[in-house]
Amino acid sequence: MVKAKKFILDKSFAGAPKEDNFKLVEEQLGELKKGEILVEAIWISVDPYIRPYSNHVPAGTTVMGSQIAKVISSNNENFAEGQLVFCSTGWKTHSIINPSLLEKDIMPRFYALPNFGNLSSSLGLGVLGMPGNTALFGFLNICDPKPGETVVISAAAGAVGSHVGQIAKDLGCYVIGFAGSDDKVKWLKETLKFDAAFNYKTKDVTAALLEAAPQGVDCYFDNVGGEFSSAVIYRMNNSGRVSVCGSISSYNANTKELPKVPMLQPAIVFKQLKIEGFIVSRWGDKWMSGIERNLNLIKEGKLIYPEHITAGFENLPQAFMGMLKGENIGKALVKV
Amino acid sequence: MVKAKKFILDKSFAGAPKEDNFKLVEEQLGELKKGEILVEAIWISVDPYIRPYSNHVPAGTTVMGSQIAKVISSNNENFAEGQLVFCSTGWKTHSIINPSLLEKDIMPRFYALPNFGNLSSSLGLGVLGMPGNTALFGFLNICDPKPGETVVISAAAGAVGSHVGQIAKDLGCYVIGFAGSDDKVKWLKETLKFDAAFNYKTKDVTAALLEAAPQGVDCYFDNVGGEFSSAVIYRMNNSGRVSVCGSISSYNANTKELPKVPMLQPAIVFKQLKIEGFIVSRWGDKWMSGIERNLNLIKEGKLIYPEHITAGFENLPQAFMGMLKGENIGKALVKV
Repeated sequence: MVKAKKFILDKSFAGAPKEDNFKLVEEQLGELKKGEILVEAIWISVDPYIRPYSNHVPAGTTVMGSQIAKVISSNNENFAEGQLVFCSTGWKTHSIINPSLLEKDIMPRFYALPNFGNLSSSLGLGVLGMPGNTALFGFLNICDPKPGETVVISAAAGAVGSHVGQIAKDLGCYVIGFAGSDDKVKWLKETLKFDAAFNYKTKDVTAALLEAAPQGVDCYFDNVGGEFSSAVIYRMNNSGRVSVCGSISSYNANTKELPKVPMLQPAIVFKQLKIEGFIVSRWGDKWMSGIERNLNLIKEGKLIYPEHITAGFENLPQAFMGMLKGENIGKALVKV
Repeated sequence: MVKAKKFILDKSFAGAPKEDNFKLVEEQLGELKKGEILVEAIWISVDPYIRPYSNHVPAGTTVMGSQIAKVISSNNENFAEGQLVFCSTGWKTHSIINPSLLEKDIMPRFYALPNFGNLSSSLGLGVLGMPGNTALFGFLNICDPKPGETVVISAAAGAVGSHVGQIAKDLGCYVIGFAGSDDKVKWLKETLKFDAAFNYKTKDVTAALLEAAPQGVDCYFDNVGGEFSSAVIYRMNNSGRVSVCGSISSYNANTKELPKVPMLQPAIVFKQLKIEGFIVSRWGDKWMSGIERNLNLIKEGKLIYPEHITAGFENLPQAFMGMLKGENIGKALVKV
């Protein structure tokens, strides 16, 4: 009998998440029934999507999220003790799972972690997991980038944005990233070899694009939405493609009073733009092949994938709030 | 030697077009060179696109637009006197054209009018011309509508919107139109058999959609943009498709100060919407087959295509301004 620690949503979010939204509680787990396994979290992920997807979650619910965990007790012949798994059981130290029930979801919510060789299992939450597949599938399938095209990425120093930029560079695109600090901008240019990068907090977006891309923008990988995205979209070329991955700029807004921005339709129609949003689960049937492709990119030395690790289960709220404020370069996660 | 009458843009548009933007002048046409034909306008089209596309046209230029004209003199063996042609020579009573030069444009700007049988040649400016192809190609190729899906159309009583709605009804879609007067709404419901129609000037869009489409919207054919379109887009279902044909609500706005509307990215990403703008010239290579398909729809009794005809070349500005104000049901044009 194991006592799990978990964070519940004590009060629903209103605006930016605050400490008092979260409450650390204990939960007594029962005996394993047939087919069940008991897992212990090693790494827990903090991702932007948790903020908007929690809008309609009742107070008292365990905070949502994915983890890499180790099987510590098994009543299922397919899972031995010591096996590492990816699971989406939320911010909990220990969870009881019946894999045969969970496997049927559209979005892969549970699987035995593939063999990453010498690489850290934590990558299963980042470059070799959901963010990595988001970057790979969401950029290539929706932006359909061609060598020589100009690609703009917002939140470019995050887990997804930095990955997209490196795929684009590898394809032979001209890559421009926007991020929220001078350190990130330096990293994008010097380490990731982006062709240009700007701090959107200190540089006007339109001016930056007129300077770095007088030829116009062909592909835009959008993590933020809002005024920023309207400005990029009005610098796009005919037949430009926008992949809308996220809308971070509105995640803390009241959904009944969304921020107002310049209307997009004149650009959309006169430049014949295509703007498409996606949730990565739509490529759920290709999940493992995506992980394999990204693993190959790492082996070929084509991907740099920093992790921003916070130590300690009890620091999950701080890690999450810090990630939403943009404190991380690369993937934000917690070492339990 | 013929003296042509023509309207020039005497002052560039600022806001809604006014009488003093236009000036009627005369032009002495020269002798026909080899390969040239002289045509006389019979019907001249007034279309919404003329407003935004004239933004960067210098004062003194002939107002743009298409016409159905008759060859009255020919120095080209392929065109006999009496032949009817479609041409885009602007608001002019007479024009000299060298067809072999014009034919090379991407957008069909000149062609011998196909045989419409007993139907009026004026249809070559509407249901059997650019607006008809806009409705057919722009709706089917971008919205990709399926039987049983819910389709919303803005500016639904115009030449394009009314055509789209009838194609959608024929496919077995549930069709909801928005227009700017109670007469138009009555016409959409009673004559075109739309499943629902509303006057957007007197009925809140969101309330109308909650009432007529509690099941949500799958396809939106957008002629107007702006606040109206944001409201429709926030009522769309997962994997909804938006075909952006026009942005009439912003055509009179200063392009440096576009109206602000609620940002669309949260809907785009969480509902995985696809929003695509188009200019009908992209289907230029299928132009004549589009006209043929629409002609067949007419022969099968599946298309009602009213014309709103203003008599007299000198009334072109009034016809154009009236169309922009929504005075027409169906295609607005001028009988010279």
